[in-house]
Amino acid sequence: MKIIKGGVTAPKGFLAGSTSCGIKKSGKTDLTLLFSTTPCVATGTFTTNKVKSGSVFLSKERLKKGFAQAVIVNSGNANCCVGKKEIKDAKEITDLIAKALNLKNESILIASTGIIGRPLPVNKIRDGIKGLIQDLSRSNGTSFAKAIMTTDTVHKEIAVEINIKGKVVKVAGAVKGAGMICPNMATMLAFFTTDAAIETKALKQAFKESVYDSFNKITIDGDMSTNDSAIIFANGQAENSIIKNNTKDYAIFLDTIKFVTKELSRKIILDGEGATRFIEIIVKGAKREMSAELAARRIANSNLVKTMIAGGDPNWGRIAAAVGSSGIDINPWRMDIYFGKVLVMKNGAGTNASRPLLLDIFRKKEIEVVVDLKTGNKSSRVWTCDFTEEYVKINAEYET
Amino acid sequence: MKIIKGGVTAPKGFLAGSTSCGIKKSGKTDLTLLFSTTPCVATGTFTTNKVKSGSVFLSKERLKKGFAQAVIVNSGNANCCVGKKEIKDAKEITDLIAKALNLKNESILIASTGIIGRPLPVNKIRDGIKGLIQDLSRSNGTSFAKAIMTTDTVHKEIAVEINIKGKVVKVAGAVKGAGMICPNMATMLAFFTTDAAIETKALKQAFKESVYDSFNKITIDGDMSTNDSAIIFANGQAENSIIKNNTKDYAIFLDTIKFVTKELSRKIILDGEGATRFIEIIVKGAKREMSAELAARRIANSNLVKTMIAGGDPNWGRIAAAVGSSGIDINPWRMDIYFGKVLVMKNGAGTNASRPLLLDIFRKKEIEVVVDLKTGNKSSRVWTCDFTEEYVKINAEYET
Repeated sequence: MKIIKGGVTAPKGFLAGSTSCGIKKSGKTDLTLLFSTTPCVATGTFTTNKVKSGSVFLSKERLKKGFAQAVIVNSGNANCCVGKKEIKDAKEITDLIAKALNLKNESILIASTGIIGRPLPVNKIRDGIKGLIQDLSRSNGTSFAKAIMTTDTVHKEIAVEINIKGKVVKVAGAVKGAGMICPNMATMLAFFTTDAAIETKALKQAFKESVYDSFNKITIDGDMSTNDSAIIFANGQAENSIIKNNTKDYAIFLDTIKFVTKELSRKIILDGEGATRFIEIIVKGAKREMSAELAARRIANSNLVKTMIAGGDPNWGRIAAAVGSSGIDINPWRMDIYFGKVLVMKNGAGTNASRPLLLDIFRKKEIEVVVDLKTGNKSSRVWTCDFTEEYVKINAEYET
Repeated sequence: MKIIKGGVTAPKGFLAGSTSCGIKKSGKTDLTLLFSTTPCVATGTFTTNKVKSGSVFLSKERLKKGFAQAVIVNSGNANCCVGKKEIKDAKEITDLIAKALNLKNESILIASTGIIGRPLPVNKIRDGIKGLIQDLSRSNGTSFAKAIMTTDTVHKEIAVEINIKGKVVKVAGAVKGAGMICPNMATMLAFFTTDAAIETKALKQAFKESVYDSFNKITIDGDMSTNDSAIIFANGQAENSIIKNNTKDYAIFLDTIKFVTKELSRKIILDGEGATRFIEIIVKGAKREMSAELAARRIANSNLVKTMIAGGDPNWGRIAAAVGSSGIDINPWRMDIYFGKVLVMKNGAGTNASRPLLLDIFRKKEIEVVVDLKTGNKSSRVWTCDFTEEYVKINAEYET
């Protein structure tokens, strides 16, 4: 696997175009289109929030067939909590794209991110579509990654190249979602492209597994979006022999998509609202993986743990308290806690680890927290970031 | 019911004493004793965190018999995560108090709050006990309320007087717990005294019900303490005819203790770390009370909701998103949301409520958020506070 330049338009046959149609007051690009010149097998995963954007409703429905060819994304408006009109609006916009590209309505997806509760400015979007189509180009992958940003401070994209039986296959992705991962307003949107030829079933399985192991394992603030969407398109233009489940080629493809999703989920954490540190939480020695996961998430979503790390303060008692309140079965007199390689709590008691050593660990950009429950052999890993005053500042001022 | 001056020593027969024995570096009082001159029926409720302070272990165990006569409280050290030594230390300290007061060991309770993971400085406490006993006085109720403080900015106490069949009965309480309610480090400790004569069974039921309706319904940051304790002592010195379950007197007593616990839980919220606003969240129209409660808690613990209120920004979409992610069954196309009396979302869509009107509501010190699920007739209420940069500042710097 080789990392190559570019983003979602690096794989063959993918074009992107962007414009600013006036949804964002700042005048930044707020409407973008990702388009494959040929039909794709496609799949997606979406928020489990019961309050969902009309854009999520529509795209989820359309992806049931396993095919799509383009996705239009607007930033600045979530198309959510405006009543059933939001589904009608989503349809209308995708119909306009279908008409412009001469495609079937069902092959166009839509994703939205931004403020909740305001109707999509359909007229502005309609007026923007012409410019969007005219801008379509292979060189616009990065513009796509930029147009989907809201409170993100950097655009996030990656592209890699692999070799499948002598054919060069590319896989790429672009994501947004700086805050509120388990997110809310600043929804996580993730788009992946590949020119691999792959069976729908194989693509679905590989994507599901990758998302589970990447985006589903990151959390910035425990809030869950109404708009989270992760979508992958595979157009087959690499002309490799078609990838099927349970083959060597599938394993290579799976590794690749896992790498791409993990790298991008890492970039989301690093760009977490107000974040200054990347935190890996590992809970091991659990009886069941679900227990390890619950404990890891409890730690990762504890404001006390996150503010402690922001403050550079190795106050491991907050980790113990978070595990104890996660609802899982533990033996508090057996539990161990490590910061990096340093054992700070052994069998439920502090070890008097060297404070200067711990302060050194806490000054680093990346911090590893390991909890060993010592009651089994299952484990889980969650990534998160620290929690600074800047987060509060950003979120107190989001709308105004 | 009449609110009277004073705190936990307002009811007859209760004395308190405080000292600073050197646990807190600041030199503020950090050791305090609440003592009834005669034996009490007593009961308590404690944290459900699986990681518990040795002080909680011991007091919980001792209260099983339903009797106690004194509680020693130290602030500045949680007596938690130091291994089984923490139970031994708690015992040793209560034994010293028992010896000094010439009481049975089993009648002394202990509570601790402060940093996790450091052994209790038993020697300092031992040296402090003499001063503590010498300080015992009816006039020291407020000193007790002050000595249990950690990051609290104000002490919190209340006393009321009722009349039960011609006898004056007093009920009082003191609490601490500014931050992290569903708390962690800045544990919630609550102590109640009454000179009522009451059966153990009746006291247990009344206290359980009151705590459920007050302290169990407040949340500052979703973190749960290793040390939370709420304890009530009733010494019978009011000489009323003994209060039994399911009587008119019981109903009067229940109302009183409910009032006292609610008032004090309200004071905790108002003193929430960094808090500037008191928020009442009501979820109604639910099929089951538990669903309403889950949704209300999800809203109350959402950083996005709390930062939005801190910012004075009536961005109700975050409320809808929180309800949708609470895991309960809802119909997003039926849900209504109100800020105060103003309907901001009706049947899942924004109402275009007047923004100046909403901004006015958000400028007030107390804000009411009502969600009507319109799927049933059960409801729940949770109190919380907003979430400011100050909270992060306090918690990033707690230890150092």
